[in-house]
Amino acid sequence: MARAAAGPVPVVVMGLGFIGQEIARAALASPEVELIGAVDTSPQLVGQPLAEVLGQPTSKLKVADSLERALGRRKGVVLLHATGSRLPQVMDQILDAVKLGVGVVSTCEELAFPFLKHPELAAKLERAAQKAGVAVLGTGVNPGFIMDRLVATVGQVCGPVRRVTVTRVVDARTRREALQRKVGAGLTEDEFFALVDKDQLGHVGLVESAALCALGLGMDCDDYEEEVAPVFAEEDISGGAFPVRKGRVAGIFQSVVGLEEEQERVRLELTIAVGAEDPKDRIEIDADPKLVVEIPGGVAGDRATANTLVNAAPRLTAAEAGLLTVLELPAGR
Amino acid sequence: MARAAAGPVPVVVMGLGFIGQEIARAALASPEVELIGAVDTSPQLVGQPLAEVLGQPTSKLKVADSLERALGRRKGVVLLHATGSRLPQVMDQILDAVKLGVGVVSTCEELAFPFLKHPELAAKLERAAQKAGVAVLGTGVNPGFIMDRLVATVGQVCGPVRRVTVTRVVDARTRREALQRKVGAGLTEDEFFALVDKDQLGHVGLVESAALCALGLGMDCDDYEEEVAPVFAEEDISGGAFPVRKGRVAGIFQSVVGLEEEQERVRLELTIAVGAEDPKDRIEIDADPKLVVEIPGGVAGDRATANTLVNAAPRLTAAEAGLLTVLELPAGR
Repeated sequence: MARAAAGPVPVVVMGLGFIGQEIARAALASPEVELIGAVDTSPQLVGQPLAEVLGQPTSKLKVADSLERALGRRKGVVLLHATGSRLPQVMDQILDAVKLGVGVVSTCEELAFPFLKHPELAAKLERAAQKAGVAVLGTGVNPGFIMDRLVATVGQVCGPVRRVTVTRVVDARTRREALQRKVGAGLTEDEFFALVDKDQLGHVGLVESAALCALGLGMDCDDYEEEVAPVFAEEDISGGAFPVRKGRVAGIFQSVVGLEEEQERVRLELTIAVGAEDPKDRIEIDADPKLVVEIPGGVAGDRATANTLVNAAPRLTAAEAGLLTVLELPAGR
Repeated sequence: MARAAAGPVPVVVMGLGFIGQEIARAALASPEVELIGAVDTSPQLVGQPLAEVLGQPTSKLKVADSLERALGRRKGVVLLHATGSRLPQVMDQILDAVKLGVGVVSTCEELAFPFLKHPELAAKLERAAQKAGVAVLGTGVNPGFIMDRLVATVGQVCGPVRRVTVTRVVDARTRREALQRKVGAGLTEDEFFALVDKDQLGHVGLVESAALCALGLGMDCDDYEEEVAPVFAEEDISGGAFPVRKGRVAGIFQSVVGLEEEQERVRLELTIAVGAEDPKDRIEIDADPKLVVEIPGGVAGDRATANTLVNAAPRLTAAEAGLLTVLELPAGR
């Protein structure tokens, strides 16, 4: 029986935004990893005690301004990377880490399945990772879990899959203010679509999930159709980071449909809105047998994302070198 | 990105009982495997056309009396094995297959985690599989999926796990007559416990699931307590393979509790009874965040078991040689 190497895996966190801080906390809580460094380039953070940044006195680390400095002489380190959603944005950071012999687990949504939108960057990463003998992985809750990895796992009990539908409904009031703004809460319809046109609004990674979902269930989609629409507040909504008046945008509805020869095979529907009713995750697989899986309340986004990164780190050191997807990760810790 | 070898994986089914037949049907339906043989030692079956045994005209195979004969000259074959629940019963069949260079995926419940009850047989299998360069795996729905692999996968979004509870309720009327008898339906209380004492009644594999569950969630149980109790019919129950009168045994309630230093960490509860109300699978993980996953109606046992074997076969040819558990399988097809 293959087992991971004994002892906790040394990890460094890069990017101390909201999610990066959650990752640092999750790493400190896990017996499977040892947090040996934290990196951020913001002048307000460099040199600060991590304990102060996190409001958690257990760490004695200080924030470094580069990965090299954070690594010191440690070997076999995995970078927990949380600095951006788009692959072109973060490509250099990941390549630099790989060249230092460091494996990378990243929240970068487009890295979850880079073969679709960035095949050349994916090939470059694959070559670099193989050459350095390390593994690179994009993960998180969405993409990375609810709409892809979990679906593929559940599909192991099914015969050939005809169609899959995954629905995720998140009440944005349970999430940070930045996310409430990111889904357009409080905007007018015109403001909403102006931001959609500028690519400044909406969830990144849904089409990557759809591609992973298809691959993981053995389906062969040749086209993906994406749609973004506002969800409007049907009454005044309070309880979020700011009130949203009736008639204003409460959040976003986003869907991707994966098609095979014009037949719908994959449908992913994501609603993130303040006051969204009946928050949950739901997977419905049309196969033999048919299967419905529900997570009442849904998987909590931010903390769960941090856990997926931390839990993946030890798996990475046991994996083959190269560019991985979550479909290749084993089930266990 | 690692991918399985191109082309379907050749598989042979051994054991053409109810589950073995389901496996053969699932193999015929899957584009990922090619059914090249079927083996059974029963004189009524040897030499018969598989198409007739299955009531499915698509196959041109005949039932062979030995694996060697079924293999012919094919290489890289995986055996889908369904002849028994106890490892000592089936050990020789598995060893023989391994020595022929054949990987094995088996429904043998004790093989799902043989390190607990049969550490010596496990070590022997591990050595033989490594020497032959093939992989050996025990899987199915239970053990193999609902109470272990799925739990470990879901736990990837959680921090350190304090406690996990998995509940599975099966209305035995939806299952074959042999299963209804296996859980004691129709017996008196005395008859029930007489069979329990003779180890002839009850579900095999629950403690194996508990051990996998603990391992997969990073918990360290040092003791497992198992309990078997009858479920009584509260009224006359019809709709099964035979009627069950009020007051008679309707089925079984079985539980395993995994303890770490006398603290309960894992609780698995399985009810299989004719007329069981609200059939479902439910996983509850007490961690950060807390998580509940429900499968309304539950995963259908027999067909789903067959699918887990067929879907695992291509993964086996890509895996490292040795004795595997489902925790090491990747999520995707």
